[in-house]
Amino acid sequence: MTATLPEAQAHSVPPNPLEEYLALCKEACDGEITRLYGSADGPGTLRDLVLDYPRRGGKALRPALSIAMCLGLGGHLEAVLPTAATLELYHNAFLIHDDIEDESWWRRGKPTMHIAHGIPVAVNVGDAMLSLSLQPLLDNVERVGLGPALRILRAVAHMTRKTVEGQAIELDWVRANAWNLTDADYLTMVELKTSWYSFITPLQAGAIAAGAGPDRLTPLEVFGRHLGAAFQITDDLLNLRADPQAYGKEIGGDLWEGKRTLMLLHALRSAEPAERERGVQIMARRRPTADDELGLGELLDRLASRGELSRAGRDAIDELLRTQHIAPPKTLADIRWLFELMNRAGSLEHARDVAAHHAQQAAAALAELDWLPASRHRDALAALVDYVHGRTR
Amino acid sequence: MTATLPEAQAHSVPPNPLEEYLALCKEACDGEITRLYGSADGPGTLRDLVLDYPRRGGKALRPALSIAMCLGLGGHLEAVLPTAATLELYHNAFLIHDDIEDESWWRRGKPTMHIAHGIPVAVNVGDAMLSLSLQPLLDNVERVGLGPALRILRAVAHMTRKTVEGQAIELDWVRANAWNLTDADYLTMVELKTSWYSFITPLQAGAIAAGAGPDRLTPLEVFGRHLGAAFQITDDLLNLRADPQAYGKEIGGDLWEGKRTLMLLHALRSAEPAERERGVQIMARRRPTADDELGLGELLDRLASRGELSRAGRDAIDELLRTQHIAPPKTLADIRWLFELMNRAGSLEHARDVAAHHAQQAAAALAELDWLPASRHRDALAALVDYVHGRTR
Repeated sequence: MTATLPEAQAHSVPPNPLEEYLALCKEACDGEITRLYGSADGPGTLRDLVLDYPRRGGKALRPALSIAMCLGLGGHLEAVLPTAATLELYHNAFLIHDDIEDESWWRRGKPTMHIAHGIPVAVNVGDAMLSLSLQPLLDNVERVGLGPALRILRAVAHMTRKTVEGQAIELDWVRANAWNLTDADYLTMVELKTSWYSFITPLQAGAIAAGAGPDRLTPLEVFGRHLGAAFQITDDLLNLRADPQAYGKEIGGDLWEGKRTLMLLHALRSAEPAERERGVQIMARRRPTADDELGLGELLDRLASRGELSRAGRDAIDELLRTQHIAPPKTLADIRWLFELMNRAGSLEHARDVAAHHAQQAAAALAELDWLPASRHRDALAALVDYVHGRTR
Repeated sequence: MTATLPEAQAHSVPPNPLEEYLALCKEACDGEITRLYGSADGPGTLRDLVLDYPRRGGKALRPALSIAMCLGLGGHLEAVLPTAATLELYHNAFLIHDDIEDESWWRRGKPTMHIAHGIPVAVNVGDAMLSLSLQPLLDNVERVGLGPALRILRAVAHMTRKTVEGQAIELDWVRANAWNLTDADYLTMVELKTSWYSFITPLQAGAIAAGAGPDRLTPLEVFGRHLGAAFQITDDLLNLRADPQAYGKEIGGDLWEGKRTLMLLHALRSAEPAERERGVQIMARRRPTADDELGLGELLDRLASRGELSRAGRDAIDELLRTQHIAPPKTLADIRWLFELMNRAGSLEHARDVAAHHAQQAAAALAELDWLPASRHRDALAALVDYVHGRTR
């Protein structure tokens, strides 16, 4: 049992203090996840798969928020670790199911769970991680006492409701091919989908684990909401341009997936009717699947050009595919065109401005927390605001 | 607030008392689900989808077990209803995700969630139902007191772990195309996958809601384990032959899905090596997908026979499909052959014998519960043992 994080090691060249803080939190959280699940009962395959995404790296941002908040308020590390580990596990469960829902292929430098192991296994592994997370929250009764343990459970119940509601809104937008959405619509969705589980609840749960009263939770909600908005917009911007080695996700994946980002919505709202119509048509196209890699179309083209397939035969095959609603997928040219549309409309600058506004609001909300004493934990939270927003600079 | 179930109505022709009891439990549970989720926040689409499977009918077996156990021990209906409703919601969440994992098309007389709304929506709706289920269990603190509420939460946490472990084992068997499995292997998997969430935990949670002590839980585990085994084997037998209107699932779906049932494993163990090899090869074949309905093969055949597609062209297309590992799916002839193999080996009789043994063990376990007084609730439990096992008669 440890009361706090170890002190940073002495270095000849001082590293970035935030990175060092995040690394310490990640180490503590990884240790807790191994303690909780590394020797779990059940088939080894399931245990390995549960630990797959958490072991792929990632910054462990959510555990760091919980730990910084708890230690910053004078709480003990062992009081918050099960909660921090649980939130990290929830995050990874959501990632596995999101990757299925978004048809993503790549996550932290490796194929996504459903690409590597199939959708059935990926659905069950995500369910396993959601299921496993309840036990440590119940064990909290012994760690932090009954009242705080129940308050953390209620916060997590609230968080999961918000998250699935946000996910449902985003899926609805893609399904309905909605485009006439405002910045406010986008921010409402992001608050539900991202801010609660990634920022607000980690901060609140850390504070509760330190014994903070209910009056502390509202200012933390404000802080987490703005931090979440700045984070998600920045993440969406990174998705358009970042180096996959550094970013760990697919480049432009959001455009292939038909995600409604602040930039894309701004570009469509700003576009001339004809361009908007083209953009909306592109968004309605499905993402290419592995089947599209078959090259069946190209082969049929070649056969037809060599006279080995009649014109009528080619037409019949195309007609069959068409009537079966096998619509053509998005192409790279489509994605480039959307990107150009956003560039011409100044949508990336607009998104950067909105992200900067929310980062400033988050910094201001943190500055107002006069009940959080100065410490390296508070410093880490302040540095996190800069980090979350500054990744595109 | 109601203390108990209403009395059955007077009938000119007395109906089946168990069916009447189940109908009363279902009505009470449906009312509770509507109270809990019918006016939930969030987008109407998500709410409607959360209520879709529960509203499709089903016998509400799990709520009935909880209610009968609680009322039979002198507990109040309102003490058990949130738990009963939560268990029914869990069941329906598992069904939605199972249907994705098993590629099932049909559920209670309608297309499955992922067939009707796509895999992304179905994954999220299942997650929503799992997430929503935590709140009523927390509200239990006010209904049944802190101690019992925490014990019910722990029982549910234990249950979900067991369920995902069982699901993982079954998915592993399908993935590895395992066939050399004993009755005991099958029963271990069924206990994890089915008995905990469908029988053991509903019985235990109902008893806890009535204030029963920890010493009551082990005999209920024994009762639920045998009841679960009899139920699942009977369900697997029904899957081979039942009327879809009465049964609500696909006929022979298990064989198409490659499920390892007691009958199929018995047939493979009993078969001559050559027949076993053929059976195992069939099981390795994938289930036909919607794409297979395209009729592309038939169209190519027609074009080739009319000279509109050259022999070389047809070969090139076949080779392309073959090298892309688009293996041929199972056929109806495959399924018929497996069914005949089971018939010849007497596997259906063997399965019926095993189910009967567990039904007898369940009846004996119930008979030994001398702390459960005689009542219409105890009678309902006894009738349920007969019902669960007797569906194939």
